[in-house]
Amino acid sequence: MTVARTVELEGHIIDSGLMQQCFGVVMDLGGNFDVEVFDVGEHKDAESFCRMTVMADDEESLREILHELHQNGAHLPDPPDATLKPAPEDRVVPHGFYSTTNHPTHVRYEGEWLPVENVEMDCVVVVDPDAEDGPRAYTKVLNAVEEGDLIVTDEAGVRVDPPERPRGSGSPFGFMQGGVSAERPSESLIREIAEAVEETKADGGSVLAVAGPAVVHSGAGDALARLVREGFVDMLSAGNGFAVHDLERGQYGTSLGMDVETLENPRKGHKHHIYTISEIVRAGGIEPAVEQGIVEEGVMYECVANDVPYVLAGSIRDDGPLPDTITDAVEAQSAIREQAHEADLVLMLATLLHSVAVGNCLPSTTRVVCVDINPATVTQLLDRGSAQAIGMVTDVGTFVPALADRVLDEA
Amino acid sequence: MTVARTVELEGHIIDSGLMQQCFGVVMDLGGNFDVEVFDVGEHKDAESFCRMTVMADDEESLREILHELHQNGAHLPDPPDATLKPAPEDRVVPHGFYSTTNHPTHVRYEGEWLPVENVEMDCVVVVDPDAEDGPRAYTKVLNAVEEGDLIVTDEAGVRVDPPERPRGSGSPFGFMQGGVSAERPSESLIREIAEAVEETKADGGSVLAVAGPAVVHSGAGDALARLVREGFVDMLSAGNGFAVHDLERGQYGTSLGMDVETLENPRKGHKHHIYTISEIVRAGGIEPAVEQGIVEEGVMYECVANDVPYVLAGSIRDDGPLPDTITDAVEAQSAIREQAHEADLVLMLATLLHSVAVGNCLPSTTRVVCVDINPATVTQLLDRGSAQAIGMVTDVGTFVPALADRVLDEA
Amino acid sequence: MTVARTVELEGHIIDSGLMQQCFGVVMDLGGNFDVEVFDVGEHKDAESFCRMTVMADDEESLREILHELHQNGAHLPDPPDATLKPAPEDRVVPHGFYSTTNHPTHVRYEGEWLPVENVEMDCVVVVDPDAEDGPRAYTKVLNAVEEGDLIVTDEAGVRVDPPERPRGSGSPFGFMQGGVSAERPSESLIREIAEAVEETKADGGSVLAVAGPAVVHSGAGDALARLVREGFVDMLSAGNGFAVHDLERGQYGTSLGMDVETLENPRKGHKHHIYTISEIVRAGGIEPAVEQGIVEEGVMYECVANDVPYVLAGSIRDDGPLPDTITDAVEAQSAIREQAHEADLVLMLATLLHSVAVGNCLPSTTRVVCVDINPATVTQLLDRGSAQAIGMVTDVGTFVPALADRVLDEA
Amino acid sequence: MTVARTVELEGHIIDSGLMQQCFGVVMDLGGNFDVEVFDVGEHKDAESFCRMTVMADDEESLREILHELHQNGAHLPDPPDATLKPAPEDRVVPHGFYSTTNHPTHVRYEGEWLPVENVEMDCVVVVDPDAEDGPRAYTKVLNAVEEGDLIVTDEAGVRVDPPERPRGSGSPFGFMQGGVSAERPSESLIREIAEAVEETKADGGSVLAVAGPAVVHSGAGDALARLVREGFVDMLSAGNGFAVHDLERGQYGTSLGMDVETLENPRKGHKHHIYTISEIVRAGGIEPAVEQGIVEEGVMYECVANDVPYVLAGSIRDDGPLPDTITDAVEAQSAIREQAHEADLVLMLATLLHSVAVGNCLPSTTRVVCVDINPATVTQLLDRGSAQAIGMVTDVGTFVPALADRVLDEA
Repeated sequence: MTVARTVELEGHIIDSGLMQQCFGVVMDLGGNFDVEVFDVGEHKDAESFCRMTVMADDEESLREILHELHQNGAHLPDPPDATLKPAPEDRVVPHGFYSTTNHPTHVRYEGEWLPVENVEMDCVVVVDPDAEDGPRAYTKVLNAVEEGDLIVTDEAGVRVDPPERPRGSGSPFGFMQGGVSAERPSESLIREIAEAVEETKADGGSVLAVAGPAVVHSGAGDALARLVREGFVDMLSAGNGFAVHDLERGQYGTSLGMDVETLENPRKGHKHHIYTISEIVRAGGIEPAVEQGIVEEGVMYECVANDVPYVLAGSIRDDGPLPDTITDAVEAQSAIREQAHEADLVLMLATLLHSVAVGNCLPSTTRVVCVDINPATVTQLLDRGSAQAIGMVTDVGTFVPALADRVLDEA
Repeated sequence: MTVARTVELEGHIIDSGLMQQCFGVVMDLGGNFDVEVFDVGEHKDAESFCRMTVMADDEESLREILHELHQNGAHLPDPPDATLKPAPEDRVVPHGFYSTTNHPTHVRYEGEWLPVENVEMDCVVVVDPDAEDGPRAYTKVLNAVEEGDLIVTDEAGVRVDPPERPRGSGSPFGFMQGGVSAERPSESLIREIAEAVEETKADGGSVLAVAGPAVVHSGAGDALARLVREGFVDMLSAGNGFAVHDLERGQYGTSLGMDVETLENPRKGHKHHIYTISEIVRAGGIEPAVEQGIVEEGVMYECVANDVPYVLAGSIRDDGPLPDTITDAVEAQSAIREQAHEADLVLMLATLLHSVAVGNCLPSTTRVVCVDINPATVTQLLDRGSAQAIGMVTDVGTFVPALADRVLDEA
Repeated sequence: MTVARTVELEGHIIDSGLMQQCFGVVMDLGGNFDVEVFDVGEHKDAESFCRMTVMADDEESLREILHELHQNGAHLPDPPDATLKPAPEDRVVPHGFYSTTNHPTHVRYEGEWLPVENVEMDCVVVVDPDAEDGPRAYTKVLNAVEEGDLIVTDEAGVRVDPPERPRGSGSPFGFMQGGVSAERPSESLIREIAEAVEETKADGGSVLAVAGPAVVHSGAGDALARLVREGFVDMLSAGNGFAVHDLERGQYGTSLGMDVETLENPRKGHKHHIYTISEIVRAGGIEPAVEQGIVEEGVMYECVANDVPYVLAGSIRDDGPLPDTITDAVEAQSAIREQAHEADLVLMLATLLHSVAVGNCLPSTTRVVCVDINPATVTQLLDRGSAQAIGMVTDVGTFVPALADRVLDEA
Repeated sequence: MTVARTVELEGHIIDSGLMQQCFGVVMDLGGNFDVEVFDVGEHKDAESFCRMTVMADDEESLREILHELHQNGAHLPDPPDATLKPAPEDRVVPHGFYSTTNHPTHVRYEGEWLPVENVEMDCVVVVDPDAEDGPRAYTKVLNAVEEGDLIVTDEAGVRVDPPERPRGSGSPFGFMQGGVSAERPSESLIREIAEAVEETKADGGSVLAVAGPAVVHSGAGDALARLVREGFVDMLSAGNGFAVHDLERGQYGTSLGMDVETLENPRKGHKHHIYTISEIVRAGGIEPAVEQGIVEEGVMYECVANDVPYVLAGSIRDDGPLPDTITDAVEAQSAIREQAHEADLVLMLATLLHSVAVGNCLPSTTRVVCVDINPATVTQLLDRGSAQAIGMVTDVGTFVPALADRVLDEA
């Protein structure tokens, strides 16, 4: 069954972005639309007019679409008067109350549009028919609602006028839009990311993990190693530091392994760091070290054991470096570029430097998941117009194990 | 003189947001447009087509507009072949080289559209007419450019296809857009904010300052006091803590004042904190304390002396509180609401709690400037669809003095 | 078996903090000490001298203690010459190499103390006996080590002179010490926190949870509710916002519950927010709402069902508020104070405001666990000289479920 | 005139760090001490005892020292009863009231030590001589003080027992100490840093500036260029990105210079970025480009013009790079190492990568100033035991101009 309704938009609807937002709303909420009339203002100062029929699968969905359209300035062709219901008690709203946006708003009362006074977000609108100078409409917060107040319910008879966006290059004032927030339900997001990894693999695609040393420090090395071993990571991009920390765990398992377990002061571990590099140098590199049994576990071990190619890029803060590390920045960038071009899904895990380097080489069509505890890092990495990106502000120390559990349980 | 050029857009240009972005580009860059043809796809799966004439005041501006339109997928009606120029030296580009976006791209060569291989951002496009299986086009980073490479210059003959935005509510993957960045030229931004303050005052408007205790701690109290004294702040919204810290400076000028100057350990200052409250209690409030000469400088002093109304809202972490502090949250919110409704420009200075409280009561048409050292705070505060907002991630300790200097020098 | 060794400290060892650090090292690493001689400089300019015997359970532990003492400036009474071993290969260190601190260092060679040139952290020390103007010692990074270099091994014959700490109040330069780092192994830390919760309960103590709305937003509400239900949370301190979000989930389970599951746009949920408050108002409060079956799950539900007392403090950014919310800040602070005085372990979960309010009322002997995604929040909360505190920079959305799993699995 | 007083410390004063803290307090506050008796517990479980005479130049200073010693557990040899004064009014404290720490505390009343009940920070102590079961002492917040309450004043007769620090490696709970705070008076701190720069130059020392691209983006490039020109920066350490952005400003002065001034969209500037590199390549490097008049201003220009050596280190996210950039990480690290060893004062400006690289090579005796808008960066950089370090969480866009103004005005 399809249900439909006609709505109209008018004014600077192109200029202000309203029209596009309205089309977006319909599509995001699973609806459909037929544009019946579209008179575009011929130049930028002219007003436009659009009438369209919106369709949805059921009344519930349609109502939801119409609600969002309404918030964005769409209205019904022949607006009726607003519906008023009395508040049943002090601080209690009637069912279906209209909750305000922070945009200029009017409500229709006896055929007239009354401007809503003191508009602010998330209030109710009260109509006072008997005000001194004729009927008035104003907002009230829940707390101020009194029994008997005539409260606007539903959206019919309410008109919202979102402001046009400011233009011209002369002003730094702009429509501000938030970036990435930490306040999202973590476990649900992890589930979605796990699904993206599984989908990519099911489609024969390649997953590139870009990992910083915090993955190892925060105790997530084992989980990443499992993902490599089980075939959910096809390529690894990291720095010398990541590899050394990981090899140190694999090589001095009990001692530094204990460190990660027991939280003892990592300082004394630094000699292990140098020994680790020294031993890999002596062995001739990571692959020979694995073959000689010097390294028996960890992310780098699993990469060698499972033929997962890795690029280790050098940097000026490295110890060592390892023989496998590409110390020339241009050469390292080329190696990263090749990986980036092959990837279908990129997991950026707690490294700004390497993630930027990979991100620079990606087309806008590659899927990207970026995880970091610093919201500024996530924002910076996603601020590149990727069409398919998830940012998550969380702790890799809990994220990677949770992702691995999801992916591997379902595998 | 007006110069003009016709461009076309086609495909899912409404759905993808491209059309709206294109109209926005023209307006942002000071141009004008006449829409000649606009065939909107009648339902969401249909493709649309738009032909419009873009006008600007001079060739330079027009070129800039066309450049941005091009990046967003617009193209000329009858695309010519791309212009190719040989690289003059290794790692040197010919003048006017085309710099890539990260979107799928084609270049026109001998009447055919060649897909650009390995597209990534900020590269050049090289056309190899003599490749084995026919002409090819691919990206090269500057570093890889070799003398004689045929490099695409200008935008004619280049087609960009920005991806459609993902739809439906089923996916957390989304077009990501960055939030607020600290990497903006601070002094220019301060100049613009100063202008906004001056404009507001010149128009007879009201400036509401919302200030956190960090304004005093960071040494910016004097600068804010000057702005109050000189009439550039019409209302103040703060908490008990802000007022106590400020009064403490005004009252124990030399001692705690010295603290702020000499950076000595603030710990021992805490008794001053309690004494300050105790003395204000004894005086009967801030106004009597000013009248009795107990407080002789600072932000609160200037508010009293210049009849600038203030709302001090209490919170559960307060010492004291002062007799002036409204300890009931509902009552305090009402007082804040009144201020918010009167304000034409709101300066939010280093306080999340009070800024959110004020922001909740603002219509989307009020100008907002939000300054905090924490980018997450700025992002959260601006994430409310204000049509006129500036966010600045900086240190109030240097910001407020710099703003005061600008505003007062020009006053 | 006990093994022992005598070490000496001399110089401004009190002034510089070295002595105390040395005593601390011994105790932290499980050793014991007898002070044999302690000549304290009688006034601040005089040098002091301390000789003590350090004891440990085994050679391994003793070596570790001596290593740390050495790094802090202690030395053996009769220092032998440093042991030199040739590097076996280029970029490979001999076993037991001495790894430098960044403090001024000398090595003993043929009875003379040679200053180590170019001292920096984590290098090896090479002695060149045949340098032009007599023997020299200098640092080398691993990369620069050449086969045959004579490399100092072990700590005997090496003397470290940590700089005295700067004094006087005239300088802002200070010994800097890091705050709280996100780079700690998350799962191990969660295990330790779980143990602290269990210990507290086993000892008949009280656990106070201080929770921000992010606990609900990030999807961790169920996990916290489980901890309440199973008796691991004895008191709850939160704000109106936390309670409303939680009740909303409990009341509109499927709809807004779906939101948290499906990641759909939370905006449209705001009406639920107002309805929730409105319904609780109508019921007369949270407890009656639970009794009337309006609320059937969630943290607040479990508190009522399990007689866990809660304090909900109001704030100026609240919607509503709920009838249970204490809107007066002074009254709310008193209620919080009572909870704080009763608590033996405080879990501060993603709320700065409420955590500061609780923290203000705690004696330095109460255990505190502070979890937030913002390192600045964790640092600020712990910057109060609590003798028993853990800070963890992580995502409550993954932290609380992981904690609940640990605690409840082991229960 | 010297004034003196004898104080005593007893208990686990070494173990707990109290003794060392007490010595530190005396020295920090400009006093002097003679240790009269020092019985150190011979092993770690034994209690120690210390009696010392503390001296200061005047009563005021002595009082301050004694206050701080008191907070840290020192007490007078023959404690008198605590002085009690009645509160003059409700919520008003008598002058000289004793303000609590959060440590366990006793007050002496009629020769007996009464434990202070409900101890928390920043309260007053009230003695109730007529309580039911004998005299009691307890804390009150200011708000709860009632006229006539007998309030402890001064520190005589008050005993504080700071808890011993937890020991052993088994627990992650620790004494927590805050890191770097943004809430410090910015202008005073800048003044102190300016003085450090001037002192270093006056002593013939070398200043090394380590600068990230944010210095240019935030508009502080001119100020840094002035510091170079006027001889206050002797060496520069940066990355390819910093140099390209700076050269771009110097080369395309009006266009991109306008960008930084007018805040126009920086996106279109990217072609300038590539042109800049391309032109420097063509010229053969930065120095030839300056000589050929291609670059006429900016930081790099001033370096060349004033023979200030620079190290530009490459990284995997670079465009270009410039011919001057050292692309090999090992080679670049060596060049950085040489600079670091020569530096007497290091200014780290908004770059984590380069600052870590430089910091790794510094001895603990080199002065370091670290400025970044991200507190985590400042904390990480200073977490290395430098004996002479200032961290400042601020915006380089306002910091560098303010520093340059201070330094150059006074020069």
